[in-house]
Amino acid sequence: MSTPLSGLGKSGLIRHLAAGIKTSQPSTLKGIGDDAAVLGYGNATLVAATDTLAEGVHFDLTYTPMQHLGYKAAVVAISDLYAMNAIPRQLLVSIAVSAKFSVESLELLYLGLQHACDQYHLDLVGGDTSPSITGFYINVTAIGEVLPEKITCRNTAKKGDLICVSGDLGAAYLGLQVLEREKKLFEEDASMQPQLTGYEYVVGRQLKPTARKDISDFFASAGMVPTAMIDVSAGLASDLMRICTASNVGCEIHHHKIPVAEETIRTAGEFFTEPLIAALNGGEDYELLFTVPVAEYEKIVGRQDLSIIGYITAPEDGCYLMTGHGNRIEIQGERSFDRLSS
Amino acid sequence: MSTPLSGLGKSGLIRHLAAGIKTSQPSTLKGIGDDAAVLGYGNATLVAATDTLAEGVHFDLTYTPMQHLGYKAAVVAISDLYAMNAIPRQLLVSIAVSAKFSVESLELLYLGLQHACDQYHLDLVGGDTSPSITGFYINVTAIGEVLPEKITCRNTAKKGDLICVSGDLGAAYLGLQVLEREKKLFEEDASMQPQLTGYEYVVGRQLKPTARKDISDFFASAGMVPTAMIDVSAGLASDLMRICTASNVGCEIHHHKIPVAEETIRTAGEFFTEPLIAALNGGEDYELLFTVPVAEYEKIVGRQDLSIIGYITAPEDGCYLMTGHGNRIEIQGERSFDRLSS
Repeated sequence: MSTPLSGLGKSGLIRHLAAGIKTSQPSTLKGIGDDAAVLGYGNATLVAATDTLAEGVHFDLTYTPMQHLGYKAAVVAISDLYAMNAIPRQLLVSIAVSAKFSVESLELLYLGLQHACDQYHLDLVGGDTSPSITGFYINVTAIGEVLPEKITCRNTAKKGDLICVSGDLGAAYLGLQVLEREKKLFEEDASMQPQLTGYEYVVGRQLKPTARKDISDFFASAGMVPTAMIDVSAGLASDLMRICTASNVGCEIHHHKIPVAEETIRTAGEFFTEPLIAALNGGEDYELLFTVPVAEYEKIVGRQDLSIIGYITAPEDGCYLMTGHGNRIEIQGERSFDRLSS
Repeated sequence: MSTPLSGLGKSGLIRHLAAGIKTSQPSTLKGIGDDAAVLGYGNATLVAATDTLAEGVHFDLTYTPMQHLGYKAAVVAISDLYAMNAIPRQLLVSIAVSAKFSVESLELLYLGLQHACDQYHLDLVGGDTSPSITGFYINVTAIGEVLPEKITCRNTAKKGDLICVSGDLGAAYLGLQVLEREKKLFEEDASMQPQLTGYEYVVGRQLKPTARKDISDFFASAGMVPTAMIDVSAGLASDLMRICTASNVGCEIHHHKIPVAEETIRTAGEFFTEPLIAALNGGEDYELLFTVPVAEYEKIVGRQDLSIIGYITAPEDGCYLMTGHGNRIEIQGERSFDRLSS
């Protein structure tokens, strides 16, 4: 029997493979199924998450500087820990690299990793460096700690909770479109210079995303613990569906509440793309998507970098996007395995 | 400037890249430079190690069953924790896989991972599944715990210590030669059946190695803490040199004391290979190489599965293999980056 991977979404595949896996160690508090595993050792509660970026899937070295790649690989794993409301502390980094790479290019990669470590106050404590026959792979494991009462999982959203998201969405996807366009033009005519003026924001969001430490810090200073949280890696639609599926709830979000930057809207126009589609399905935003009780409304509403985009409903109400004039569209979460997703 | 990777050994490359990296988190007790990082959280001391296996470098899917690959990937990371004298507890697994793989083949991979988890009493707690354009990559991070007084590093061997190794060496390398020979014969004539009878031991050591939990248990029950330890992944010569370099000591080991299995010797003969060379440079044995004070001699000497192969000398004495009749050969550690090593 041979079932192609392409038939399953990424979450579906992980769910399928993890279905038979049981945990038995007392130190395992939470296994597969969230942004990070939760471990209890002595009087400490730890979180650990691992992410792989693969050449040709998650990045293209023709337009991705090695330094940015190192930074981004770190941010992707660090973001998973913020999505648990945890504090990242250490990184382990494994790379598989073909002999055609220079020592200098790996130095740049490590500069980027170190830059992320400095910015988010982590230590790079270990790793592995392997030869690779084809392609470049980087795997980052992030380890951190969390107070047990602050752990924020995907499966604890409650009916009536507000759905909130930090920053804006869809920019990283459009940055990728710009970079791909310039690559194509360069391939057709090698005298072409890449034209990135006016696209600094969207390209920056693609090449050098930010993990929302500031939002994690805000939760701490506001004395607030979200009821559920995830980072937006696959796209708002997929990631919101992950919360709803895990929490067994429905949701209703509103088109005009979804935050999209000016430059994203303008760039989307050039590519004949709906900004909404980029926000819903683009992914790689690494913003925090979370739910809070209505009682927390006042704490959220005053912040420019947080948007309330809807609310959690009962499971039988389904998951819907309201587009105005009473129209509603059912939210489709998962995309197929062979598309970009991290 | 462009310096090729092939000019540096694997340890040399990691040392080079890690040279500028400083740690500042109080929870980081030991960073890059040993089999695993050591972390202190609350009253617990943890260890974490990460390893990547790359298709075409560390394994060939034409003769590596997916179930064995999963098992081996887990063992490689678990072995790193035993080499710290720690107890492995959790695994995080990332795979990058092309869409041509079937769901069933990944199920087999996870069966192998689960089998290793069952055998060594670990939980599989998380991971990532990415698309890959070319090749199959598997990264395993192992997390475990250790009593602070039992942590065994590479850099603490002392002059006069006995050098000991578990099991036997060189078999995994010769198992690889047998598998490569059968693959070649099959490629020349597809009606050929692989002939593995008589090679079960060496092939088994290549495809399904063992992490020496039993030796770690022996240290605990004997109330013994090695002065230094490493697992034999790159080969006895390289791994012993890692201990000597990190500890700033010399060593003298004896040819006829190095444990090599009967089947390894016989198979080496067929391939016109010296069994000694396979033991020194073959790698992938995942035996424990450790040093103990002479006072522990009695505890070691009675065990069939431990061999005392030499002793630690002063740094100015260098690192030598004694071959009998007073001949001695300087031990060369590092191999170049583009050769197999993990």
